Amino acid sequence: MITKFMAPEIIFGDHAIHQIGESFLRLGAQRILVVSDPGVKAAGWTEQAVNNLKETGLAHTLYEKVTTNPGTDQVINGAALYREEKCDAVLGVGGGSALDVAKAVAIIVSNGGAIEDYEGVDRIHSPLPPTIMVPTTAGSGSEVSQFSIIIDPKRKKKMTIVSKSLVPDIAIVDPFVLMTKDHLLTAATGLDAISHAIEAYVSVAATPLTDVHALNALKLAAANLRPSTASHTNLEAKRSMAMASMQAGLAFSNAILGAVHAMSHAIGGRYELPHGEINSILLPHVMEFNLIASPSRFAEIGDILGAAGSTENEMEKGRFGIRALRSLAGDIGAPKTLKEVGLNNPDFHKMAETALEDACMVTNPRDVTLQDVEALFLKAYE
Amino acid sequence: MITKFMAPEIIFGDHAIHQIGESFLRLGAQRILVVSDPGVKAAGWTEQAVNNLKETGLAHTLYEKVTTNPGTDQVINGAALYREEKCDAVLGVGGGSALDVAKAVAIIVSNGGAIEDYEGVDRIHSPLPPTIMVPTTAGSGSEVSQFSIIIDPKRKKKMTIVSKSLVPDIAIVDPFVLMTKDHLLTAATGLDAISHAIEAYVSVAATPLTDVHALNALKLAAANLRPSTASHTNLEAKRSMAMASMQAGLAFSNAILGAVHAMSHAIGGRYELPHGEINSILLPHVMEFNLIASPSRFAEIGDILGAAGSTENEMEKGRFGIRALRSLAGDIGAPKTLKEVGLNNPDFHKMAETALEDACMVTNPRDVTLQDVEALFLKAYE
Repeated sequence: MITKFMAPEIIFGDHAIHQIGESFLRLGAQRILVVSDPGVKAAGWTEQAVNNLKETGLAHTLYEKVTTNPGTDQVINGAALYREEKCDAVLGVGGGSALDVAKAVAIIVSNGGAIEDYEGVDRIHSPLPPTIMVPTTAGSGSEVSQFSIIIDPKRKKKMTIVSKSLVPDIAIVDPFVLMTKDHLLTAATGLDAISHAIEAYVSVAATPLTDVHALNALKLAAANLRPSTASHTNLEAKRSMAMASMQAGLAFSNAILGAVHAMSHAIGGRYELPHGEINSILLPHVMEFNLIASPSRFAEIGDILGAAGSTENEMEKGRFGIRALRSLAGDIGAPKTLKEVGLNNPDFHKMAETALEDACMVTNPRDVTLQDVEALFLKAYE
Repeated sequence: MITKFMAPEIIFGDHAIHQIGESFLRLGAQRILVVSDPGVKAAGWTEQAVNNLKETGLAHTLYEKVTTNPGTDQVINGAALYREEKCDAVLGVGGGSALDVAKAVAIIVSNGGAIEDYEGVDRIHSPLPPTIMVPTTAGSGSEVSQFSIIIDPKRKKKMTIVSKSLVPDIAIVDPFVLMTKDHLLTAATGLDAISHAIEAYVSVAATPLTDVHALNALKLAAANLRPSTASHTNLEAKRSMAMASMQAGLAFSNAILGAVHAMSHAIGGRYELPHGEINSILLPHVMEFNLIASPSRFAEIGDILGAAGSTENEMEKGRFGIRALRSLAGDIGAPKTLKEVGLNNPDFHKMAETALEDACMVTNPRDVTLQDVEALFLKAYE
C-alpha cells in the first residue's frame, strides 16, 4: 500500500504569534486578508496578529465576521473583500471556523467559482495564495489539516472539502493564546481533538506515520485536558493541549476520520450546535459500535485512557477505554446527550442519509448501514 | 521556547517509485536533472526512475557520477549539466550521497556562486527548483531533511549545509528498493539511522514533535535492523527500516544532531571511509560521554534497546542501553574500531578542532572541549 503524508511548516511555542509578519515576508506576501471572528477579536488576539503585520511593514484587510458553523455567505464575502482590496495572501486567526473560512476564501480567490464546486476530495486544481493559520483553540487541528468544513444552507449540509492544497503553508501555534478560552470551550474543543485522534487511529486509512501522531495526541490530551479545563492560567497544560490538538490534526488530515465526524457534520448542517460537544456525545457510542472492527487498536486506546491493567482481554480493554472516556467527559462537564444540547424533534432518518454520504464515513473501520446510523443517533439522543 | 518543524510531502510504500513522474507533473516540472550513482544504476533503480519520467512525458538528463563522500566537483558538474540542458527540477535517486549532491546542485542553479558559500545554517535566500528525493538506502534520512553534506577537498572538510530550503518538495520512499542492498550497506546505513534517532533525541534542540519521531524510529530500528541485515528479501523488515530511517530523518532535521556526527564529519572530510560505519563506531563512546547530560533520556533509549527491566536506576538503564547497542552492532557484523576500518596515523588533534567547529556540535547535550573530543577519538580508535 502506498500512503501519503503532508504537514505544513510548523512554528510552535509561547508568543509564536509574533512571528506571523516575518513568516508572510518569507512567503513573499504583501497584503494580507485577515480572517477572524468576534470572540477572538474581543480577546485581543486579532489585534496582536494585525499589529505584528504592521510592524513588519505588511498591509492588511480584516474580515472578522466568522461565526460558529460558518456558511457559504462568509466565504463569498471574505473572497469579495480579498479581491476588492487586492490581497495576495490569507491569514486565519481563530478557532476551526475562522481557519476553515480562511482556507475556503483562499480556494475561491485562486480557483474561482463557488465553494460548493470543491466539495469532496481533490477538486482543487490551481495553487492557493500563501496561507498562514493561527489557531486560538486546541481542538480543530485545521492549522495543519487538508480539510475545510463549510455549511451549504440551501442543502442544510456541512460540506467536507479535502485537498492537499488546503494544508496551509505555515501553522503558527501559540499555546499562550489558549489562556483566554473559557472552560466550556476548552472542554468541547479538547474533546474534539480526542475524537480526531481516536477516529484517525482506527481509520481504515491509518498509516504508521499517522499512528504515531494519533497515539501521542491521545496521551497528551488524556493527561492534560482535565487540568487545562480547570484553569485559565495552567500554561503547561495549554502547551500540551496545543500539541495534542496539532498532532491529532496531523493524524486525521492524513488518515481521515470516521462515523463520529460524518454524523456530527450531518447534525451541524441542520442545527446550530457546537461541533466539539456533538462529537464528544457521539464518540463513545460510535466507539462501542466500532469496537469489533479493531479490538487491538481499541485496547491500546483503552490503555492510554487509563483503563487499569486488570485485564489482558482486548475487547475488555476497549470497553474500559470507552468508560474512561465517559469519565473524562463527565469530569470536565461535557454534555451527555444530544437532547441536552438542544436538539429538538430531529429527523434522524434524513440526518443518517446525509451522514452516510459524508467523505469521513468512507474511512470508518466498521461497515455502516442507514439503520446503524439511525440507531447510533437514537442512542446518543437521550 | 519557540520551535520549528518542517517535513516534505511524503509518499511511502512498495513501488512508490512509480509515482515520481506524476509528482513532478504536479510540481509543474518539465525537464528533470536526475542525480544518481553507479551502484544504484547497476541495481536498476535509476533506470526505473527514468522510465517513469519518460512514461509521464517528462524530459530528463542523467548525472550519475556521485561517489561516497561526494565533493564540490560533483556539485559543480551536476549544476553545469542542469544549466546546459535547461533543466527545471532535480530528482535524487540513491543513498545519502546522491541526495545530498542533488540538493547542493539545486542550491547552485537557483542561488549561484559556489557550494562553499552556503556552508552553515540558513545561508540560502532564493527558492530552489522543485526537488524530489528517492532514497535507496535506509539510513541517511536526507529525503526529508534540511541537511546536505558536501566535502570541500581544499580544506579536507565535510561541510554541513543546513537550510529549510533543503527540505525536498516530495520524499518518495519505496521499501521495495531496499532489497538490492548488500548486508554490509544495510547494517552500516541502519546504524546511521539509529545514530540519527539517538542524537536527535538527546539534542538540546529536541522538541515534543522531534521526540515522537526519534523514539519511534529507534523502536522500529531496534526491532528490524537485525532481520533486515539478515535477508535481502525480508520486505516487512525493509518497510520498517525505511520508516525508521525516514522518521529519524524528520527528528534530526528539526532537532539537529550531536558529537557523533560532528566527529564523523571531521573524519569523513579527511579519510575516504563510510559514514554509517564511522558513526556506529563513535556512537557508544559518545553515548557514554553524554550519559550524565540526560540520564532520563538515555534510560528511555536503554528501555527501547532492550535493556532488561532489572533496574530502575536511570544511569544503569542508560549503560544497559549502550551495551545493547554494542550487541546489536556486533550481531550485524559492524566494525568496532576506527583502526579496523582503515584509519591510519590519524591526526586526532586537527580532527578534534574540525569537529568542534561543526554545526552538529552545537546541539550536543554535554559541553565538549577539544580534549574531550581527542579522548573520544582515541577511545574509538582501538
